[in-house]
Amino acid sequence: MAEQPASVAVSTVIFGIQDHGGTAKVHLPLVRRVREPHLGRWALPGGPLRPDESLRDAARRNLADTTGLDAAHLEQLYTFGAVDRGAPDRVVSIVYWALVRTEVAATTRDDPNVAWFPVDALPPLAFDHEEIVGWAVRRLKNKLGYTQISHALLPEEFTLGQLREVHEAILGRRLDPANFRRRAEASGTLTPTGAHQAGARNRPPALYRSTVREELLT
Amino acid sequence: MAEQPASVAVSTVIFGIQDHGGTAKVHLPLVRRVREPHLGRWALPGGPLRPDESLRDAARRNLADTTGLDAAHLEQLYTFGAVDRGAPDRVVSIVYWALVRTEVAATTRDDPNVAWFPVDALPPLAFDHEEIVGWAVRRLKNKLGYTQISHALLPEEFTLGQLREVHEAILGRRLDPANFRRRAEASGTLTPTGAHQAGARNRPPALYRSTVREELLT
Repeated sequence: MAEQPASVAVSTVIFGIQDHGGTAKVHLPLVRRVREPHLGRWALPGGPLRPDESLRDAARRNLADTTGLDAAHLEQLYTFGAVDRGAPDRVVSIVYWALVRTEVAATTRDDPNVAWFPVDALPPLAFDHEEIVGWAVRRLKNKLGYTQISHALLPEEFTLGQLREVHEAILGRRLDPANFRRRAEASGTLTPTGAHQAGARNRPPALYRSTVREELLT
Repeated sequence: MAEQPASVAVSTVIFGIQDHGGTAKVHLPLVRRVREPHLGRWALPGGPLRPDESLRDAARRNLADTTGLDAAHLEQLYTFGAVDRGAPDRVVSIVYWALVRTEVAATTRDDPNVAWFPVDALPPLAFDHEEIVGWAVRRLKNKLGYTQISHALLPEEFTLGQLREVHEAILGRRLDPANFRRRAEASGTLTPTGAHQAGARNRPPALYRSTVREELLT
């Protein structure tokens, strides 16, 4: 049984949408461990809390170190601290979850030990990180139902089709396009930009902007 | 700026319903500090995480030490860890919130430094505990809207009037009795026991039992 005081770490589950064989899927970046324990396993970005940074700043640093990106949404998820966690030394981890925009969601620092994986096809993870990812995925699905969290995963201007693809990626199932369009238009959280998507041949789809994106940034 | 590693504490916001001048109100127990810093101020029950207990067990211990009670609901709220928190030494506090049943909600250990207060009339609190109570109250109000969390505050058998009083206490406003009754009966989470409240003179109100209480106990 651990007799040392617990040490404090901060980890971040980072979600972004990427294409995976023609289908948009939720992905997250992992870091390969270069020391024991769990040497060589993939793990969530994270590390010890520094004395001069807030919990949130530590979560933001995880994100910047891994991807070089800013979060479009950043929120505390849960704190994990089982007695045998991180054995031999007990580690209490405050976990955040972050969303980054689709168009940059594959970005990583130039580091062979960082890579993005689809959440439904993860490699074996270090420590209790599979459980933590499970928590984060449930939170993301939940929040999709009662917030406009999906807007944080999209570029500044997007089509209703792109918005639907984000919802489908998170829920892991197809949604009826006409129903989805009706509900999205009725949500009061989208403004048409007046422009249309470039490149489409006939009837190019209209572009929208989120009216609530700024609130998501907090 | 702190240079020591942060130490880990667990605190618990405990809610119970008590009568306050004829009106049911949400109350919580506080502990008067008997050492510096903030000597003499009221504070949330809590203290350092012990090496051999889980976070949840530490939260349960706060509850038992303060009230001698078991929680009818116990859930992690949030982790607070600002750089200057607990100065001079940085303390990261994992905060839980608990609900206890109405009929025992005034219970405390025989200790002059423990007392229950209405949440809308708290004394000045130590550290950032006012902010923490604010978070817990918002979480409680939120969960009232989409769960049957209110059942955890009631005795095993209760009337619809008692259930409404709990909702009114949490929301801080009166609810229409007929509407409330209709929605409660339609919720599918209450079973009539067949018995009626003792003591009432005419038309004694029917007693109900929660069908979801067990789920709340987790």
